[in-house]
Amino acid sequence: MTHKVSDSTIRRMSHYLRALEEMDRQEETTVSSTQLAEWGGTTAAQVRKDLSQFGSFGKRGLGYEVRGLTERLRAILGVDRRWRVALVGAGRIGAALFEYPNFRLRGFDLVGVLDVADDKVGRSWGELTIRHVEELEDVVSSEDVDLVIIAVPAAAAQEVADRAVEAGARGILNFAPTQLRVPEGVPLTDVNLVMEMEALSFAITSAEQGS
Amino acid sequence: MTHKVSDSTIRRMSHYLRALEEMDRQEETTVSSTQLAEWGGTTAAQVRKDLSQFGSFGKRGLGYEVRGLTERLRAILGVDRRWRVALVGAGRIGAALFEYPNFRLRGFDLVGVLDVADDKVGRSWGELTIRHVEELEDVVSSEDVDLVIIAVPAAAAQEVADRAVEAGARGILNFAPTQLRVPEGVPLTDVNLVMEMEALSFAITSAEQGS
Repeated sequence: MTHKVSDSTIRRMSHYLRALEEMDRQEETTVSSTQLAEWGGTTAAQVRKDLSQFGSFGKRGLGYEVRGLTERLRAILGVDRRWRVALVGAGRIGAALFEYPNFRLRGFDLVGVLDVADDKVGRSWGELTIRHVEELEDVVSSEDVDLVIIAVPAAAAQEVADRAVEAGARGILNFAPTQLRVPEGVPLTDVNLVMEMEALSFAITSAEQGS
Repeated sequence: MTHKVSDSTIRRMSHYLRALEEMDRQEETTVSSTQLAEWGGTTAAQVRKDLSQFGSFGKRGLGYEVRGLTERLRAILGVDRRWRVALVGAGRIGAALFEYPNFRLRGFDLVGVLDVADDKVGRSWGELTIRHVEELEDVVSSEDVDLVIIAVPAAAAQEVADRAVEAGARGILNFAPTQLRVPEGVPLTDVNLVMEMEALSFAITSAEQGS
């Protein structure tokens, strides 16, 4: 497809996929847009609108076939294949990420972990050995890395991103609390936990002031 | 204000604030919308549009006064005060959160940590002692908790949210990979790391298919 799909549509698609997988486990065979809406925190009309951006699914009044829609959503989201992931910054954020259920299940395989700290380089991380960030280009190319997760201090993040992209990384997940610049065509998503907290403090504060 | 400010505006406001604080450290006194735009990953026109939603700032052609705009942004985002935070789920996600520089600096004070695991309850977490989740209501009310961070497995998250809100929590940051329901007026933000990875895999996959 060539039109731009919004980030919020993609997030809801992720929720729908999780719902469908759960229903499949419970051996349900069909699902209504109302049921999917509940999982996505939205309305049935929004579910139909979201899905319609990717083609034709289900028949009006009959709902969707769980197994078939699951497979199509997996293909749309690109999680019907394996992704090779490198983690730069072997700290708690990285560790937390790999505790997520679904991380490996969704097709994300960690193939490299890098850090700069002398007391980390050379130590093991699951089945991997932590390598020095100097070796980033080598890891990206020899391990055929698709996605790089950046969990280093803000001041070091842009250089890591530049080098990862130059070496062939195709997408970046950034945890460093700074705005990274990447070439067009290289998707970047940011997770900034302080910013999430600020969204809450803003919502509460503005409600107080409005009342 | 009574109109709805978009999430993306709030995120950019957080970026602008970080930029302003950095400029203040570098002893710069004025800043242009172009400079702020660079930090926010946006355009000067967008900066002016974002700020204009909150009143009148600066004079056209003269830029903004760094110190004054910093203070107003802190007030708008509600980070000119302290927020009392409880963490439910004393795992790596929680640990990672408190490693973020700025967490305490932005006014977020951790006043309670809870878990269900026997080997965690009673142990120390920084200056706190980990308490059993059964005591959630007590912690929220006795510690006057504003915000609750939920970092428990998906199956347990809704109950924690319900109990936290019932006990008086005013906002929820959810790391559990599930869609929580909270009463209207209680802001909820979600951080779902697998969903962020899916956003990347979607972007790469759809670009491949479009080319």
